[in-house]
Amino acid sequence: MDEKLLSIDNATNELIKKAQTDGVETIWDRKANMKPCPMGEKGICCRICTMGPCRITPKTPRGLCGATADVIVSRNFARMVAGGAAAHSDHGRDIAHVLHMASKDGNYKVRDEAKLIKLAKRWEITTEGRDIYDVAHEVAEFALNQFGKPFGNLELPPSLPEQRKKVWEDLNIVPRAIDREVVTIMHSTHVGCTADADSMLDISTRTALSDGWGGSYIATELSDILFGTPIPRETEANLGVLEENQVNIVLHGHEPSLSEMIVLAAEDPELVALAKEVGADGINLAGMCCTANEVTMRHGVKIAGNFAQQELAILTGAVEAVIVDVQCIFPALAPLADCYHTKFITTSPKARITGATHLEFDEEKAYDSAKSIVREAILNFKNRDNKKVFIPQTKNHATVGYSVDAIVNQLDTVVNSQIDPTGTVKPLADCITSGVLRGAAGVVGCNNPKVKHDYGHIELIKELIKNDVIVVVTGCSAQACAKAGLLSKDARRLAGKGLATVCELVDIPPVLHMGSCVDISRILELVGEVAKYLNVDIPQLPVVGAAPEWMSEKAVSIGTYVVASGIDTWLGVVPPVTGGPRVLEILTNEMENTLGAKFFVEPDPVKAAGQIIERIEQKRKALEEMFENKEELAKA
Amino acid sequence: MDEKLLSIDNATNELIKKAQTDGVETIWDRKANMKPCPMGEKGICCRICTMGPCRITPKTPRGLCGATADVIVSRNFARMVAGGAAAHSDHGRDIAHVLHMASKDGNYKVRDEAKLIKLAKRWEITTEGRDIYDVAHEVAEFALNQFGKPFGNLELPPSLPEQRKKVWEDLNIVPRAIDREVVTIMHSTHVGCTADADSMLDISTRTALSDGWGGSYIATELSDILFGTPIPRETEANLGVLEENQVNIVLHGHEPSLSEMIVLAAEDPELVALAKEVGADGINLAGMCCTANEVTMRHGVKIAGNFAQQELAILTGAVEAVIVDVQCIFPALAPLADCYHTKFITTSPKARITGATHLEFDEEKAYDSAKSIVREAILNFKNRDNKKVFIPQTKNHATVGYSVDAIVNQLDTVVNSQIDPTGTVKPLADCITSGVLRGAAGVVGCNNPKVKHDYGHIELIKELIKNDVIVVVTGCSAQACAKAGLLSKDARRLAGKGLATVCELVDIPPVLHMGSCVDISRILELVGEVAKYLNVDIPQLPVVGAAPEWMSEKAVSIGTYVVASGIDTWLGVVPPVTGGPRVLEILTNEMENTLGAKFFVEPDPVKAAGQIIERIEQKRKALEEMFENKEELAKA
Repeated sequence: MDEKLLSIDNATNELIKKAQTDGVETIWDRKANMKPCPMGEKGICCRICTMGPCRITPKTPRGLCGATADVIVSRNFARMVAGGAAAHSDHGRDIAHVLHMASKDGNYKVRDEAKLIKLAKRWEITTEGRDIYDVAHEVAEFALNQFGKPFGNLELPPSLPEQRKKVWEDLNIVPRAIDREVVTIMHSTHVGCTADADSMLDISTRTALSDGWGGSYIATELSDILFGTPIPRETEANLGVLEENQVNIVLHGHEPSLSEMIVLAAEDPELVALAKEVGADGINLAGMCCTANEVTMRHGVKIAGNFAQQELAILTGAVEAVIVDVQCIFPALAPLADCYHTKFITTSPKARITGATHLEFDEEKAYDSAKSIVREAILNFKNRDNKKVFIPQTKNHATVGYSVDAIVNQLDTVVNSQIDPTGTVKPLADCITSGVLRGAAGVVGCNNPKVKHDYGHIELIKELIKNDVIVVVTGCSAQACAKAGLLSKDARRLAGKGLATVCELVDIPPVLHMGSCVDISRILELVGEVAKYLNVDIPQLPVVGAAPEWMSEKAVSIGTYVVASGIDTWLGVVPPVTGGPRVLEILTNEMENTLGAKFFVEPDPVKAAGQIIERIEQKRKALEEMFENKEELAKA
Repeated sequence: MDEKLLSIDNATNELIKKAQTDGVETIWDRKANMKPCPMGEKGICCRICTMGPCRITPKTPRGLCGATADVIVSRNFARMVAGGAAAHSDHGRDIAHVLHMASKDGNYKVRDEAKLIKLAKRWEITTEGRDIYDVAHEVAEFALNQFGKPFGNLELPPSLPEQRKKVWEDLNIVPRAIDREVVTIMHSTHVGCTADADSMLDISTRTALSDGWGGSYIATELSDILFGTPIPRETEANLGVLEENQVNIVLHGHEPSLSEMIVLAAEDPELVALAKEVGADGINLAGMCCTANEVTMRHGVKIAGNFAQQELAILTGAVEAVIVDVQCIFPALAPLADCYHTKFITTSPKARITGATHLEFDEEKAYDSAKSIVREAILNFKNRDNKKVFIPQTKNHATVGYSVDAIVNQLDTVVNSQIDPTGTVKPLADCITSGVLRGAAGVVGCNNPKVKHDYGHIELIKELIKNDVIVVVTGCSAQACAKAGLLSKDARRLAGKGLATVCELVDIPPVLHMGSCVDISRILELVGEVAKYLNVDIPQLPVVGAAPEWMSEKAVSIGTYVVASGIDTWLGVVPPVTGGPRVLEILTNEMENTLGAKFFVEPDPVKAAGQIIERIEQKRKALEEMFENKEELAKA
């Protein structure tokens, strides 16, 4: 591989070249010019009041208020958690509001009644003899109250092992209402509040848990109820999925309430006819970032690419509209779209972008709203300039949509594109305890131009599966895998013997697509259920997390709740905490004593894989010893 | 005045000198060494994801995601609003929780039943025939729901003029639940969300309003119910209030739930006896920052000083304990206290400080908790080293405690240290419309070493009262005035003829102490009631706000909600927005078109006073013309 290339992905490299020819700028150009602030990279600059901004140096070891490097670093870290938890959880809240407006004759319907009923029962909401929508609305209200209830703690799901809950109780980090946790961070980081790294990280952890086991968990469960629980589906990925003779619409962002309606609208005969009328063969939807994950795993919509590729989609000259809602959307898309014919359409009041066409998506009139947006795209087809069009012929096949239910089902019973609610995690647990699978890794997160595009994800994952570690993926990591062919069933040829055998027996790829970033809650659920089945706490399982190319605050929240859930987590990008020795010590060492897991920072994915495998084998050994002891105890 | 002095306040200058002799560091030493980050000062560095931190320069006009200077500046501004609104509102929430645990036989009681009943009626809570504590608990729950209710908007108080509400409705900035607004900012500022300065500032404004007319308003109203509505009281201010032969306890922070109990505990015969036993003449409480305002206006507790003086209290060598809760507490107090005998006691889980003695305040056992804390202070008296003691003999007399009720009462009826609930704002409105008073200014906010200590507050206020502008003060501005003698009734000699006459007639100082920073809600209430009485919108009144030495995020939230309430606001410290031309244009110009008021930035307090007076006279003219037109219309 040419070391000078910015991506391991051909389509990306080809379009970066086109950007140069076209004379337009991409993130890699900006990266080449930008010198990251060295103080900010270490986390030691403080802008929390206006006496500064203060920067910690050997000559100025304290800010004006007296804040040390550790105080500043820990506050900045906490605010990253707050930003991430807020983004994820607000997504959950929006889905709850959509469930609250669902109705039999409305645009939003209940698609997974069984899941709704199960959740209603868990929350002690009466279901017998009631209209399903009455139940849905009460479930939605119960969910919404998790964000703002004045008293009590977050309602934690039953997949959380009791042992884990006890750990949190002892550390006093069981979350209260989700919004309150975010607000507590913003308060505690205010000038003159928390000035103690240990305490600040405890507060951060509690907030992160309110995301993972709260906001994100709610987002996933209610999305499944509204839009259907994913089952394995076939799709394709990379910019080669764009079609020369069709109206190409890229769906980019996060919340399925918008994208689900766009999917429906794009099938509307009126709009299909309109597309023909303007000279196109049809309407071609392609997803980007987490929206791609949402629509591919429920509808098989093709995947255009991940975070770093969003500009490249426009650069093909073949995209009539990029439709976005919230999170991870480059403001750069607006001036870039002006250089091509692409309409860049923002839809959320929470993410307006200067220079974009703002067509606010109205959930109350969701379908009509979606139709107007799609119509804009179709009518833009005539403006396409074929001289500017270049669609890289790169794409790969992928199987996507492994919800927990689907995994359990696939491992436990014969597959008929139907989820069998009687399935258990026993076969998965057996594969792990027997050692056929050495362990499992959740590889998640973003792209970050500090890492060669997709390299961090793919190198790490290839190493893991080669060593019989089954990998589950979400977010931009999932798309990297899809593009690299790792979500294809024949990728089992890259797996070690044990994993390859399991893949063949149960007809799965060695890397399982579990959804979007909020769907890391699916990973929590799966791991929690396995731990419960084995009657161990999560840290005892040979399971790890990794975010090789992370960049967002959501990733900081995720990393924190994953570690707090007892899962060691490898970061491929150094977090801005290196200036705080105490913070660093807690995150990368002491958390293991309190939470049973910690962070590892390793930019080299191959080295990271080595560390992960070593760690997994340590855990296996301890687990085996424990089981042997138990057997002996049972005999005695 | 010696230009080299760091404060206009003698006690401060003397203790800064003592710090040099003692070889200890103060904020002014740190200020002398710290070079503020020039990028941060302009607001153009972005740490919201880890692709950077990006910094905007002519060569790098966009961050890696494509964020422009305006995007970055507006997001940073929004997060300051979020931090400030979170701090204030969380304070309100805590007070609501305390009201919820109030009981007839408990530590916390209802002290202003009339105010409780009034609030209950406003919120349509049944009061007839009910136990007052049942009513109190329901009021508390209603208040708590304003933080987290899933549906509907914030319950706005009746002092808000209808015209103003209409402005907010048209701009779509009526706040929803308070916590949700903070979370919305954290979400909207996340990487890839709002990238439009106009939209970002609208979101910020909505959140700030949820503080001023929500969280802070609730904090004030419920504090009055729990601890009594302030009435004018006499007190003294500055470090000279510390007593050589007494156990000196400095109460520093914000929430009265702690300080009220300390006040009670310090009068406990057992503890008074213990103080005598250890050789002291008694227990001397002195307040600092907003806690000073809370306890002085309800108990006449003396004021030790404001924000910049917190280290100086310890430097006297005569303070047995500094007891703090949340906000504006220097982490520097911990190492400084180690150089003296002072115990630095933190009490809140939201503000633990490395090196402090943490004695968590338990509201459920508030009185016992307070007693243990006071006991610690008393037992520390023996450790005082008299060789290290220096108490500056500087203090001034002040009248404090002008709640809205007290002002209305004092202006409307004979004063008997009793509030007359039948009072109206008519006399105040008359004074203003007649021109006896040219207008009113609320001067608020912090200390900031970018400004000579207290100079910004005092110079501005002296100019204003000289020109017949009545001034109301809160926060550290109030303490600056108390120390400078401006809260003394005989300060009317510094006032213009009109103001001096009013002061003499109704026996008030020309500068009225309205409380702590959350009590800026009292100013909103007063201004709202006057506007309603005159049937005008707030921007039509000759009323301004000013924060000459602001430094905190709370001040950013305050400034924003004050402007959004229609009150022009002068800032003496340049906010970190100068790098964003669009942001600057909106804040300092266009907001006037949408909200009827805007920000002015003027570091020179004398110049600021001139601008304020000019603006007030413009408003007077417009108001007079309007009233003349109305009279003519009425005649026709």
